Amino acid sequence: MRQLEEQCAENISMAPRYAPSLRSRLAPLLLFLQLGFIVIYAFYTEFQSGVKVDGKTLSNIYPVFQDVNVMVILGFGFLGTFLVRYGFSASAFNLLVAVIATQWAIILNGIEPYNRKIRLDLRSLVDAEMCTASALISIGAVLGKTNPVHLILISLLEVFGFILNKWVIQTLLGTLPLNSIMLLHIFGAFFGLTLTWMLYRKGSEQRFEKEKSDRNTGLFSMLGTLFIWMFWPSFNSILVDDRIPARKLGAVCSTYLALAVSAVTAAAVSLLSSPKGKLNLTHMQSCILAGGVAVGVSISVVHQPWEAMIIGFIAAVVSTIGHRYLKIHMLLAFQCHDTCAVLSTHGLPGLLGWLAHLILLIKDCDDHTTAIRFAVFHICTLLSTLSLSLSMGLITGLLLKWNFLRTPQDRKCFDDQAFWEFPHVTLYK
Amino acid sequence: MRQLEEQCAENISMAPRYAPSLRSRLAPLLLFLQLGFIVIYAFYTEFQSGVKVDGKTLSNIYPVFQDVNVMVILGFGFLGTFLVRYGFSASAFNLLVAVIATQWAIILNGIEPYNRKIRLDLRSLVDAEMCTASALISIGAVLGKTNPVHLILISLLEVFGFILNKWVIQTLLGTLPLNSIMLLHIFGAFFGLTLTWMLYRKGSEQRFEKEKSDRNTGLFSMLGTLFIWMFWPSFNSILVDDRIPARKLGAVCSTYLALAVSAVTAAAVSLLSSPKGKLNLTHMQSCILAGGVAVGVSISVVHQPWEAMIIGFIAAVVSTIGHRYLKIHMLLAFQCHDTCAVLSTHGLPGLLGWLAHLILLIKDCDDHTTAIRFAVFHICTLLSTLSLSLSMGLITGLLLKWNFLRTPQDRKCFDDQAFWEFPHVTLYK
Amino acid sequence: MRQLEEQCAENISMAPRYAPSLRSRLAPLLLFLQLGFIVIYAFYTEFQSGVKVDGKTLSNIYPVFQDVNVMVILGFGFLGTFLVRYGFSASAFNLLVAVIATQWAIILNGIEPYNRKIRLDLRSLVDAEMCTASALISIGAVLGKTNPVHLILISLLEVFGFILNKWVIQTLLGTLPLNSIMLLHIFGAFFGLTLTWMLYRKGSEQRFEKEKSDRNTGLFSMLGTLFIWMFWPSFNSILVDDRIPARKLGAVCSTYLALAVSAVTAAAVSLLSSPKGKLNLTHMQSCILAGGVAVGVSISVVHQPWEAMIIGFIAAVVSTIGHRYLKIHMLLAFQCHDTCAVLSTHGLPGLLGWLAHLILLIKDCDDHTTAIRFAVFHICTLLSTLSLSLSMGLITGLLLKWNFLRTPQDRKCFDDQAFWEFPHVTLYK
Repeated sequence: MRQLEEQCAENISMAPRYAPSLRSRLAPLLLFLQLGFIVIYAFYTEFQSGVKVDGKTLSNIYPVFQDVNVMVILGFGFLGTFLVRYGFSASAFNLLVAVIATQWAIILNGIEPYNRKIRLDLRSLVDAEMCTASALISIGAVLGKTNPVHLILISLLEVFGFILNKWVIQTLLGTLPLNSIMLLHIFGAFFGLTLTWMLYRKGSEQRFEKEKSDRNTGLFSMLGTLFIWMFWPSFNSILVDDRIPARKLGAVCSTYLALAVSAVTAAAVSLLSSPKGKLNLTHMQSCILAGGVAVGVSISVVHQPWEAMIIGFIAAVVSTIGHRYLKIHMLLAFQCHDTCAVLSTHGLPGLLGWLAHLILLIKDCDDHTTAIRFAVFHICTLLSTLSLSLSMGLITGLLLKWNFLRTPQDRKCFDDQAFWEFPHVTLYK
Repeated sequence: MRQLEEQCAENISMAPRYAPSLRSRLAPLLLFLQLGFIVIYAFYTEFQSGVKVDGKTLSNIYPVFQDVNVMVILGFGFLGTFLVRYGFSASAFNLLVAVIATQWAIILNGIEPYNRKIRLDLRSLVDAEMCTASALISIGAVLGKTNPVHLILISLLEVFGFILNKWVIQTLLGTLPLNSIMLLHIFGAFFGLTLTWMLYRKGSEQRFEKEKSDRNTGLFSMLGTLFIWMFWPSFNSILVDDRIPARKLGAVCSTYLALAVSAVTAAAVSLLSSPKGKLNLTHMQSCILAGGVAVGVSISVVHQPWEAMIIGFIAAVVSTIGHRYLKIHMLLAFQCHDTCAVLSTHGLPGLLGWLAHLILLIKDCDDHTTAIRFAVFHICTLLSTLSLSLSMGLITGLLLKWNFLRTPQDRKCFDDQAFWEFPHVTLYK
Repeated sequence: MRQLEEQCAENISMAPRYAPSLRSRLAPLLLFLQLGFIVIYAFYTEFQSGVKVDGKTLSNIYPVFQDVNVMVILGFGFLGTFLVRYGFSASAFNLLVAVIATQWAIILNGIEPYNRKIRLDLRSLVDAEMCTASALISIGAVLGKTNPVHLILISLLEVFGFILNKWVIQTLLGTLPLNSIMLLHIFGAFFGLTLTWMLYRKGSEQRFEKEKSDRNTGLFSMLGTLFIWMFWPSFNSILVDDRIPARKLGAVCSTYLALAVSAVTAAAVSLLSSPKGKLNLTHMQSCILAGGVAVGVSISVVHQPWEAMIIGFIAAVVSTIGHRYLKIHMLLAFQCHDTCAVLSTHGLPGLLGWLAHLILLIKDCDDHTTAIRFAVFHICTLLSTLSLSLSMGLITGLLLKWNFLRTPQDRKCFDDQAFWEFPHVTLYK
């Protein structure tokens, strides 16, 4: 009886304390950021114009821009809707974070010492959206346990760290490796993991009360996954030089083959590792993407169909086994609650792709000196990426522990009702 | 008791009176229109062929056509599915209306005094789909309170009015302003508002019994919104001359920036204006599009990123405040029940875009005479659009009040069961 | 009492017998196929490179590849989600089957006597995906009554049969008719029908217990349908020669018109044939596609808009009447349970398109000799297609009756729970 009363009292005292936090924190943050961006854009950007734009370029890059846009806005947005009471938040906060991170990445990408103005064109939009993708991967690890103020701060710091990493690599090595942008999977995943480790709550070994899915949310999430799966060839082919159509074509075909092999392999491994011999939809949703991640990191050295297929095969095996056994191990042993399993979906396949890149690079080299030089370059790139992602994750985690940002209570996690009005809604049919 | 009996009697007498109306009205209307279109197309159309079509044109226009098609068929169709019992109607009637309005618009757009034949190509399909979009905006205002016969008549008259307006402007001003097609937002919104004012039912101050949404329909509607949001750059770039790729590119980037700013701003204003400090999903769905509307109307004079961003910012503020306060005011003070809030989503941002166009145009002019001449042109265009949309809305409203068309009763509003068979369906899980 | 006990015993003995079947059959099959494909690809394929690929080709074919990919993966996948308890299976098994069939079709399509290596490019991917579409159509007829092992075997044999048919036609007639790939609708539909006739279960005259839909699954299915509908113009334009843009444009416009007419006509006929004068969502989902099927088979001889429209009109009438009356007749009279009504959606409109092709071909011929020669060619093509599809269907049916493959029991049909883990799912809200 006593307990019940206390609980009620707690409920009453919590409800009003919780609700206003969004208005007094989120709205000023959004307005400040947006007005700040407008001022910066007013002084330092202009549209690309003149000689360099021709119709051919436009008709080449436009479909690619649309596909990446669909992956970032729709794909990532609906991927997170599998949580039965968190669909509104997953899709709408994804949109918010994506547009803020993209505006931020355009500025950071465009800063150059000798250019007073940042040139805006479809290419810079596409590059910025890839940095955004990196932030959205990180957010997958903390989804549901944070509020939108956290999510926006995470995305700003993550994009800053990712672009800093690019700058560090360029400064240290004297040149920017072609595939550096593809390290977004590794950077995003380890940043997100450090973050969720820092934000660990006592008692999270048990599943959160509202961390569930149902038939319909499973299908919504499948929809997001399929859009990412279908348009991934565009994502990977961006990196490749436009002036050599045959290379671009190879990138598209390689990605398709790696994704296809991943889908088949993920299903087989999911079945084999299941105690009841059944498939698991979350495996089908995460692990079919592993091939795309791995082949994306190594795309510039994949020259044969079978190379792409082997990479896709190993990536799917690693990812599915990681999803089945590693996710729960990370939670129990390392106190690291990873909502969307970004370690198995992006982290491990990303590392695998990096390894494949190294092996294929060495195989293609004729003499030992070049091979060793390439290998050192390549290892430095990874070390820089890992150390920066872990340290930025730590810093971000420390910042997010600040009480001022009002982390949601455990019972409010994975619940839309903390953030959304439901005026004319029949919540429970 | 008495009352109950009467009600039962009423129910019994209503049910059979209602159901057959669709067959005896809708089927003949559909067949008459479709066979009529086939006859007209047989005598007066032919495919574009020969010299003017080259591969470059095709590969430029084809992705744009697909994007506009997705916006019109999928975007508008799923935007209306937020109504919990009206999803089948919202998506399927949208398809029906869209294909009829497009066939009709191709004919009306193609009539020229000296050409015996209408040339059909992707360009004419895209132009026709933009007229269709105008009709679909109008339908948003009366959705759920009308039957499909009404919807088809509305779309025919709206498209006729919209193309008449283009002709009037061309005749009066001697030239067709480049952005006249973008007045579709203003024309569509005010046509729809007049119509819903004419069709006002007593007692609509209270919410209709079935005008509700739930978690799943909220996500379906989010899906439609995101497709419109993602492909809007294609929509706005159509207007711009194909032969100047830099302008086209500018239009795409401007639209993206305006939409991004809209999304952030709509979230901030929605929070600030909420009594409980929470977000509202319908605001996120309607008001994030406001920037695309406003920048679309003014696209031909937007030359700087910050111009697009400021327009997006103001449009989202106006739209969100309009959605929060004006929608209910329109209902109570002006007896105007606006289902999808087309006034705040398309009407006000459209007017704002018109104003932005005027200001930027005058700013760009060097001498006063040209500026005044442009301003007069511009104001005439708006006056013509507004007066034609209001008068066509009045005429259409009068026609729809005709009993022969069998307006649904209040209790059948927002309900699929009036129009659809549910043979093997588990309606309520 | 006795009966109850027996039933319980049966349940207990069944549950464990059923579940492990997937692991011991499906996982080895998937791994064997996938590793086999990797080995074959390692020895016999290489990426297309060098002179033949230029930027123009890439920017022409890339959007088409994406559209076909979306139709095959998303469109067909979500088309089958109308079954209320079978959504996970419908969408995920479709993905599995599609990627396996595509890898298989690339190999079979690429075998040529004098070429040691198969060249991989976007064109070969697109061709392979069209063969896959043929297999997915067949699967529509047996959906829900088979397990994934069956589905994979069906797709392998169907694709083999379809490509064999192409080879037979080429060998017999000395040349490959341009539209032979479009016979995929006829081949797929009649293969599927023979199969479902072979696999008939006693008692299927009554509806399966779980063969139902609800409001949400209706909308998911609508989503898949609309994606197929919207991107169909890309599907039909593939066939047409890239070097004549005007023909490609004609194909796109023809398909759009035929689909538009189909949508209107299907609604009208569905209303007229309904006892209560209401629309039926499954008709709107299947029959609006009939025009695309019919005009696709005859696309190479359609030169006028009205020809496409007439074909779309008749196809929709035939398809809707077939759906309303023929589906149940096929079940009762011919013991042929056709889950997705492939006979009315693909079979009859395909035959109609073939007939239209014949008539238009003869009409265009100047002299009788050529006309008769063409007609004989054309009839031979159909006869070969029909006889091969029926005989391959018979063989596949015989194979699938093999007990080793463990056909699901009647009570497990149309149910995800036989194949999927539901660990943290709230199944019934």
